[in-house]
Amino acid sequence: MKLSFSPASPFARKVRIAAIELGLLDQIEFISATVVPGQPNDEYSRITPLKKLPVLILDNGDVILDSYVIVEYLDELAGGTLFPRSGPARWQALTLQSLADGMLDAALLARYEDVVRPEALRWPEWRAAQLDKLSTSLASLEATTGTLANRVDIGTLSLGCALWYADLRFPDLNWRPHYPRVAAWAEAFGKRPSMHAVWAL
Amino acid sequence: MKLSFSPASPFARKVRIAAIELGLLDQIEFISATVVPGQPNDEYSRITPLKKLPVLILDNGDVILDSYVIVEYLDELAGGTLFPRSGPARWQALTLQSLADGMLDAALLARYEDVVRPEALRWPEWRAAQLDKLSTSLASLEATTGTLANRVDIGTLSLGCALWYADLRFPDLNWRPHYPRVAAWAEAFGKRPSMHAVWAL
Repeated sequence: MKLSFSPASPFARKVRIAAIELGLLDQIEFISATVVPGQPNDEYSRITPLKKLPVLILDNGDVILDSYVIVEYLDELAGGTLFPRSGPARWQALTLQSLADGMLDAALLARYEDVVRPEALRWPEWRAAQLDKLSTSLASLEATTGTLANRVDIGTLSLGCALWYADLRFPDLNWRPHYPRVAAWAEAFGKRPSMHAVWAL
Repeated sequence: MKLSFSPASPFARKVRIAAIELGLLDQIEFISATVVPGQPNDEYSRITPLKKLPVLILDNGDVILDSYVIVEYLDELAGGTLFPRSGPARWQALTLQSLADGMLDAALLARYEDVVRPEALRWPEWRAAQLDKLSTSLASLEATTGTLANRVDIGTLSLGCALWYADLRFPDLNWRPHYPRVAAWAEAFGKRPSMHAVWAL
């Protein structure tokens, strides 16, 4: 199977980290794709009309999207435990994934405002509102870090990726002093080999 | 349980339609929430830091997000069949949901460009690129409508909602003559009572 990716795509990174956790990395061929919002890419558009990264292309040609579906597919394939099968643990893990993915969506919109949109058309309040979602999410997480301890599931893995991307693109956020419990969790979780493995293609 | 909503939120509509299909509508209290991108809403932010619609608030206070998690929760609660449990049918349904939700995300970004962003800061190419995602998605669907026939699952239900929103906000798209098979599917699927039930609160 093949996964479309770019090294800076946080959602592709999440799938790769899940693949490492599940022992599936060797079974995936990573294919580089470049997607710039607002620029056509007809070749990639034939694979996925939304032109989002990543998509998983199975050996039979079937395409699976988005990242949160791909990781569950990989989990089923590996017989993994990243997705609790049912009950409160499942909804807790999936809700944390939704929160982390939403943080990423907001960060990406702020990033597009910074580097994709023509400078004269940028709207600082929009950018600030997106980054504010990171802050309110971090505040919410700070109050509930007790529920994160020792969890390795799709929720915590997604959160690790969201914080990685926030640090990559918005180092000035300087969130750690304000949310020390999240920072402590991130430091501990970041020690997992999957979290700091480099792209080796 | 309670669901936050606004009548024009396509993702809240999707959850409501799923609730109707699953026979759960009477068990959900719908609570109106107003979320305007870029405007603070501290009260709602305390419920969900991302300030997205909808969220499901369980009787024990647990919050479930996003809509694609909520609908699966409701499906499990009702013992429903909107989510195939495993295997190719599951990934096909979830991938179609991702495609439809991605169409909605693109449509919402175009809508924000039209009505939220100050007029002087609007970027027509961005709006066009978002709406182009609707067109490329419709073209992809037109080639695969055979896989949609007689399916009532979270994928087809999501697609019905995406097309509803496209018609609501972008009637000028006039997509039906260009994608007649999707149009025929949408007309047939739209006859389901859940699809044309009105909000009655």
